Amino acid sequence: MSLDWNRRELMLAAGGLAITGLEFPLATYGQDPASQSLDPLGKDLIFRTTDPRNGEPELAQLVKSWITPVKHFYVRSHAPNPVIDIKQFRLTVEGKVRKPLTLDLNQLSQMPRQQVTATLTCAGNRRTEFNEESKVGGVQWEAGAIGNARWSGFALADVLHQAGVLEDAKHVWFEGLDQIQRPQGVIPFGGSIPIEKAMVGGEMPGALLVDQMNGSALTPDHGYPLRTVVPGYIGARSVKWLGKIVVSDQPSPNHYLATAYKIVKKTDPIDWTESGPIYRYPINGAIATPQPQARVPAGVVDVSGYVLPSGRPGSRVQRIQISTDGGSTWQPAKTTGQSSEFCWQLWKARVKVTPGTKALYLRATDTAGGFMPARVPWNAKGYLQNRWYRLPISVT
Amino acid sequence: MSLDWNRRELMLAAGGLAITGLEFPLATYGQDPASQSLDPLGKDLIFRTTDPRNGEPELAQLVKSWITPVKHFYVRSHAPNPVIDIKQFRLTVEGKVRKPLTLDLNQLSQMPRQQVTATLTCAGNRRTEFNEESKVGGVQWEAGAIGNARWSGFALADVLHQAGVLEDAKHVWFEGLDQIQRPQGVIPFGGSIPIEKAMVGGEMPGALLVDQMNGSALTPDHGYPLRTVVPGYIGARSVKWLGKIVVSDQPSPNHYLATAYKIVKKTDPIDWTESGPIYRYPINGAIATPQPQARVPAGVVDVSGYVLPSGRPGSRVQRIQISTDGGSTWQPAKTTGQSSEFCWQLWKARVKVTPGTKALYLRATDTAGGFMPARVPWNAKGYLQNRWYRLPISVT
Repeated sequence: MSLDWNRRELMLAAGGLAITGLEFPLATYGQDPASQSLDPLGKDLIFRTTDPRNGEPELAQLVKSWITPVKHFYVRSHAPNPVIDIKQFRLTVEGKVRKPLTLDLNQLSQMPRQQVTATLTCAGNRRTEFNEESKVGGVQWEAGAIGNARWSGFALADVLHQAGVLEDAKHVWFEGLDQIQRPQGVIPFGGSIPIEKAMVGGEMPGALLVDQMNGSALTPDHGYPLRTVVPGYIGARSVKWLGKIVVSDQPSPNHYLATAYKIVKKTDPIDWTESGPIYRYPINGAIATPQPQARVPAGVVDVSGYVLPSGRPGSRVQRIQISTDGGSTWQPAKTTGQSSEFCWQLWKARVKVTPGTKALYLRATDTAGGFMPARVPWNAKGYLQNRWYRLPISVT
Repeated sequence: MSLDWNRRELMLAAGGLAITGLEFPLATYGQDPASQSLDPLGKDLIFRTTDPRNGEPELAQLVKSWITPVKHFYVRSHAPNPVIDIKQFRLTVEGKVRKPLTLDLNQLSQMPRQQVTATLTCAGNRRTEFNEESKVGGVQWEAGAIGNARWSGFALADVLHQAGVLEDAKHVWFEGLDQIQRPQGVIPFGGSIPIEKAMVGGEMPGALLVDQMNGSALTPDHGYPLRTVVPGYIGARSVKWLGKIVVSDQPSPNHYLATAYKIVKKTDPIDWTESGPIYRYPINGAIATPQPQARVPAGVVDVSGYVLPSGRPGSRVQRIQISTDGGSTWQPAKTTGQSSEFCWQLWKARVKVTPGTKALYLRATDTAGGFMPARVPWNAKGYLQNRWYRLPISVT
């Protein structure tokens, strides 16, 4: 019996209703704080911090399936999971709209439901590799702060159409219901996306307001009862525990858009002002197997991993290559499993290694012109590390 | 008799007064439109476009001196040089200030005069190298859109202190007196810098309001009678023919900050919104001699060029290296001439070439962590090309 099934049972036992079509289409998961213990620390994820909860899976686990099980989906939070009473829950839509909205979950579920598969990745994925040059702050992610899930919910564009966006709207802010202790006081996690992205409708909306992940209600760790999912953008723009949407002519002033999640050399105010917010993620990838420092006999070795093409509409993986000689020569890897817009691509390769082989390297390109470079300039917050992935091995 | 001397004579003949200390400390250069013909097309610069005037020097000329003579200093304009009557000229300072200012040139010259040496470079320098992958628009610069000059003028910080900057000021806008034809109508060239940069005083102010270049009044091509010089930032932020300063809580809405001069893949509105303005320039460099495609005998060859460290306060060139084998091995170059913050570094090297040598490569690093990478992702406007510089040669 899978953990997913266990969770669903527990939801029902706790009084949660079915996933769609009933009075509260969003299950009650998470109302009981005890339900948070369903992700016991260290069982399915390696927690880099436990308060707030920030965990990533073992890479070998992570690449076992194209769709990442919820239990192996990285968790990135800035505060304890808020406990939300869905009977009280309201989503507000305000700012530069003709008709501000206050929607309970029933009203929201009147909107046409949409489902997309999309990869989320933290801007800090692979951050620890920057430490070789100079220690960077933030959650010490290795290469597991990434996951691919089926998201179900409602197109942001549909909600905005209902509210009636005014002519001078330029950005759409998201604000969470979490409470983050900052030196200046308590703030929610927040951010914004350009209005052009927000208004994208159709099969792959620019942003979704999501209540279900892989066919089940969101877990508290992933934003229950409602979160944003913005395909193609760094995870930070997919605000969890979504409570408020503001349409504005300015980018969000929230700390996590205006200051954090920027490429800066130092953390001076001038650096923050000079640097724009990160929205799209660049191409990235990692070797998931063998294990780092694995002892393998000389001969052929099987290698596998993931590559996420850059978060640009229509971008697909173009080339995935492995080097056993430090980047002088490269051999192609084979894609495996499914491929889809805004989704990672799993891959495998069989390469020959000799006692002289010290490491395996991965690089890749995408159809949007993105490539994993040999080296990435250090930045103080350790974002967007996407250099050739290096896996040290020991050949016997 | 040097051209500089000629120009000064002509200024005096045209009624221009001495450079400092008299009633109009800013010479009248440029009042006579005929004086623009002092830079005859194609003599000292290679003009990529003549209307507006956009020219760069031959690289071999460019690296002959640490201070670039005005006649060999690249010209980047978006409209015809405005003809400005300095008796009518006023600089206005408005927006989030306690006391808006309207300053004529006499009043401005009451401020303490400051002099700095700083390199300016166009964000589009080396743009043509992007064309190998896919043609990019804009002025087709090779590697000469860079120059180093002695600038004399007044610290922006002093002017802002006089106006009294309000608490919520975040950006300082500059607006030129030129008139650029755009699809939406006629606009001045403009841009802005963060308030933290604008308020830097001392020996190396964050920005200078400049009336003299290399000891003479600005030429019309370089912004007579007054321009901004922002050490460390791309040339576009050093607005020429400066007429207006606005202190604001927002970045400038001017096209050349809000839309142009951004790293975008396509020129969709969404790309522009997603991408922040470029302020600082990254490290860059070029091989100036020998000439491209030069036929040189096997043996040793003398190489020279420039490297500009990234535009971060205190950043200096750390390492300059040449490769004759496509980047497999590298040999050090020697710095020559002067070195100074926000200034380029000239260098030379003597390397061995064989008939197998197809090209010389340059790469460099700086003390701010910047490096010239092997490859730079293509962008639609062709900005910030700073990959290893490749000089093809033919060894006989």
